[in-house]
Amino acid sequence: MKIKVGILGATGSVGQRFIQLLAEHPWFEISYIAASPRSAGKKYQDAVAGRWLMPEAIPENVKNMTIEDASQVDKATGRCSIMFSAVNMPKAAIRKLEMAYAEKGFAVVSNNSAHRHTEDVPVLIPEINPRHLDIITLQRKKYNWDKGLIVVKPNCSVQSYLTPIYALLESGYSVDKLIITTLQALSGAGYPGPSGLDIIDNVVPYIDGEEKKSEIEPRKILGDIKNGKFEYNDSIDISAHCNRVPVIDGHIVCASMHFKNEIPDKEEIIRIWIFL
Amino acid sequence: MKIKVGILGATGSVGQRFIQLLAEHPWFEISYIAASPRSAGKKYQDAVAGRWLMPEAIPENVKNMTIEDASQVDKATGRCSIMFSAVNMPKAAIRKLEMAYAEKGFAVVSNNSAHRHTEDVPVLIPEINPRHLDIITLQRKKYNWDKGLIVVKPNCSVQSYLTPIYALLESGYSVDKLIITTLQALSGAGYPGPSGLDIIDNVVPYIDGEEKKSEIEPRKILGDIKNGKFEYNDSIDISAHCNRVPVIDGHIVCASMHFKNEIPDKEEIIRIWIFL
Amino acid sequence: MKIKVGILGATGSVGQRFIQLLAEHPWFEISYIAASPRSAGKKYQDAVAGRWLMPEAIPENVKNMTIEDASQVDKATGRCSIMFSAVNMPKAAIRKLEMAYAEKGFAVVSNNSAHRHTEDVPVLIPEINPRHLDIITLQRKKYNWDKGLIVVKPNCSVQSYLTPIYALLESGYSVDKLIITTLQALSGAGYPGPSGLDIIDNVVPYIDGEEKKSEIEPRKILGDIKNGKFEYNDSIDISAHCNRVPVIDGHIVCASMHFKNEIPDKEEIIRIWIFL
Amino acid sequence: MKIKVGILGATGSVGQRFIQLLAEHPWFEISYIAASPRSAGKKYQDAVAGRWLMPEAIPENVKNMTIEDASQVDKATGRCSIMFSAVNMPKAAIRKLEMAYAEKGFAVVSNNSAHRHTEDVPVLIPEINPRHLDIITLQRKKYNWDKGLIVVKPNCSVQSYLTPIYALLESGYSVDKLIITTLQALSGAGYPGPSGLDIIDNVVPYIDGEEKKSEIEPRKILGDIKNGKFEYNDSIDISAHCNRVPVIDGHIVCASMHFKNEIPDKEEIIRIWIFL
Repeated sequence: MKIKVGILGATGSVGQRFIQLLAEHPWFEISYIAASPRSAGKKYQDAVAGRWLMPEAIPENVKNMTIEDASQVDKATGRCSIMFSAVNMPKAAIRKLEMAYAEKGFAVVSNNSAHRHTEDVPVLIPEINPRHLDIITLQRKKYNWDKGLIVVKPNCSVQSYLTPIYALLESGYSVDKLIITTLQALSGAGYPGPSGLDIIDNVVPYIDGEEKKSEIEPRKILGDIKNGKFEYNDSIDISAHCNRVPVIDGHIVCASMHFKNEIPDKEEIIRIWIFL
Repeated sequence: MKIKVGILGATGSVGQRFIQLLAEHPWFEISYIAASPRSAGKKYQDAVAGRWLMPEAIPENVKNMTIEDASQVDKATGRCSIMFSAVNMPKAAIRKLEMAYAEKGFAVVSNNSAHRHTEDVPVLIPEINPRHLDIITLQRKKYNWDKGLIVVKPNCSVQSYLTPIYALLESGYSVDKLIITTLQALSGAGYPGPSGLDIIDNVVPYIDGEEKKSEIEPRKILGDIKNGKFEYNDSIDISAHCNRVPVIDGHIVCASMHFKNEIPDKEEIIRIWIFL
Repeated sequence: MKIKVGILGATGSVGQRFIQLLAEHPWFEISYIAASPRSAGKKYQDAVAGRWLMPEAIPENVKNMTIEDASQVDKATGRCSIMFSAVNMPKAAIRKLEMAYAEKGFAVVSNNSAHRHTEDVPVLIPEINPRHLDIITLQRKKYNWDKGLIVVKPNCSVQSYLTPIYALLESGYSVDKLIITTLQALSGAGYPGPSGLDIIDNVVPYIDGEEKKSEIEPRKILGDIKNGKFEYNDSIDISAHCNRVPVIDGHIVCASMHFKNEIPDKEEIIRIWIFL
Repeated sequence: MKIKVGILGATGSVGQRFIQLLAEHPWFEISYIAASPRSAGKKYQDAVAGRWLMPEAIPENVKNMTIEDASQVDKATGRCSIMFSAVNMPKAAIRKLEMAYAEKGFAVVSNNSAHRHTEDVPVLIPEINPRHLDIITLQRKKYNWDKGLIVVKPNCSVQSYLTPIYALLESGYSVDKLIITTLQALSGAGYPGPSGLDIIDNVVPYIDGEEKKSEIEPRKILGDIKNGKFEYNDSIDISAHCNRVPVIDGHIVCASMHFKNEIPDKEEIIRIWIFL
């Protein structure tokens, strides 16, 4: 018995990735796909015709599924229990839509940044902060939800470098300063992303919003729940510099750490690289 | 005494190229620049702030010029005699706007394809068909223009390969079949053009509309004026294949020709390459 | 019972590709690997350490195999029946080495161009000229070989475009002129191939030797055996233009054909594209 | 009256850059060019035929100059006073050759890293350590040179980021930790440098030797002369991470600094970017 899941924003580049990753998944079964009114009513393969970006073909068990209008939340009732969100709309509209699905009893797992700083929504890295799931009880009480919930994932570079840093923290290394430099591929920008004219034979040394995300999200993930909301960890100063490089897939993150405490027989600054 | 010229669509990528090429030109002086209502009234440097694409700085003598609304044709009266057109609008709107400037007495020289197949507008390559300028007398009579006129330039790859082929034709080689393969840089697509995700580590083997242009425009340029309009040359069959390659600037055109007549001591098929 | 095969030149980029393609093959079993004296005696994984170019890991069943010295032909006796050759040496030395293995009774199948114009060695595309295998009887008689033989494959772009052209020829279209334009990826050049400085943001419009191969090899493949050797087909004139493009893998071949005979209701020139 | 200069290693990629930069220089006149015995005796344009890498043509006043054998030091006598060194040989051979020219009375200014850690050779950034020229008196006394001398320039990324850091030091900011991340173009690797296969659609996150240079050279440049030799500054810990990116020209250096002293109203870590 597989768990039935839905995908909001199933036709965009992130939605397509969800389709690809979930179609043959051993635990999950895609039983509901939704997108904007423009795609609603169409078969999936017709809606993404000419703009399917994944390297493999559209999965057989998805291509003839009919797309629902994501805004008609009632249509989803009874069709799945988990709702993966990959919608691409203004942040406020995303927050509202994800709340509407949670209210209807769905476990909303969002790829989007819209709810990352909502005070009672956890930014989860299961290896680091599973205890943040405790806040779901508070979510349900506050909004009067029965089974619904919202959790989100962090920014793509944060989710890569925070795990090894967390392992250091757990081992007694008190990082007080963290300097992050990233070299990020084009696929992270979504489609179409930077123009070929801007990125071929070039590096773009700034990614709007990305540095701020890298500097703030880790402080929530490493923070605590206090008085029903998240308190950001303020013992680490993070300084991030994000570069877009002319590469299709993959990121490099170089993290340099400074430690508050004396580490006998160790350098005071340690650098790590993460390749993903 | 320099000739005063205007530029329609001065803020776009082609318009910027006109600005760059004409600002220090020994014959011309930019005395009028126009664009869409959104840019009208602004100083040139303010209107293109953040989207100036040329490698050199905005020319000193242009950066503080005020942009006019291109649709207010009367504003141009008395400010210049030649109007270079680089507007980016639907083709029908371009044709209408260029006609309006011609009617007001301007010599409109267009970079756009909108009028390339208008029956009495010459597609000029000065080295090949200067005699096509004879049709201007007919233009003026037909539309009741006093000094105005419209001439256009051909597609960028056509203008490169047609000159050497014309030289062969003039030398008695009767080309009856012409096979064109192009490798075209991104800058030819305008900004933003293809996404980096589509073109890095890739070649796009089709450029919408480009093959048709390459197959038809040469037949007009090599044609004759008959009964007040252009008759296309039908003695050459052209087959074109256009590829977009991950290169910022420059085109390669490979043209293979087959000759109708016997060329003593020559191959029947000759290939030429043009690098630009 | 799988067929036991050997690989000559197993450590180079082509040899690595043979390793990758054959290691899990349903019909074949790699039972002998040989390379230059410098690699001989080493375990495969040690010999290619730091220069393994395939995307997947070195196959488990190969990584601990010991590499033989390819020049010690006797060492191969009894270990396999088919010998795939990917050696990288001067052409004359390759021809001699492949002959030595054929003399010892191996069926030598070469990826190299060294024997492509040897008068009694077939250049095989199984879908086109399987009857060229008839010459093996003559090879064996001439060189007094018992079971040995040599066959080679054509140049990579030839093997792509010749199959559809052959299908046209078989259907009664008498192609008399063939104009080939290729856009070829870097991997076809072997490692290291063109410098990043030469190929990033650039196209190299000439590949040394490639155009000649494209113009001559098809005439052997489409030729006949006469008096114990191959007679090249001279009814097709081929003109090829080969470009190196900044792409890791994949070729585009554009082939334009002119027909000798009248094709009712058809264009006289047909273009086909092959993407591989 | 221009100063006559010579170039050692004039045919390599760095030597070609010297030729290009000096040929029209207002202060200097190229009057001697030398290279390996293979090029000696040839005209410059013949020696670099097919491997001239600069975007402009070979300067008119250089192309017919005859190349000398750099190892025949006596041939240079009387032809110039300054000798720019761009030779490409084993480090020990470079040190010896540059010493030989200094001994003959030439002011040797080297682009090479060979002498960067020679105890009495200054690594100069004129804006930072002009006082290091004091050591020349000691050089001459020690080696018994009359007019000769050797000075070198630092690694390309060091010369970019050290100037602004020096300005901070001069203003009272005591940097004690410096974290450098570079994104370096291919041209810095010399020709041919990385293969297109390794760098297209990729970033190479390590440049052999480059990180060590970035960590040690600044400590010499910021050091003092003590007892006739350079004493390295040990008050700054430098940690560098150097990446090669698929770009033809230009480097990005991101330098993050930590300060020993309290800076009122300032962050403890400051980041700067240098684009060159």
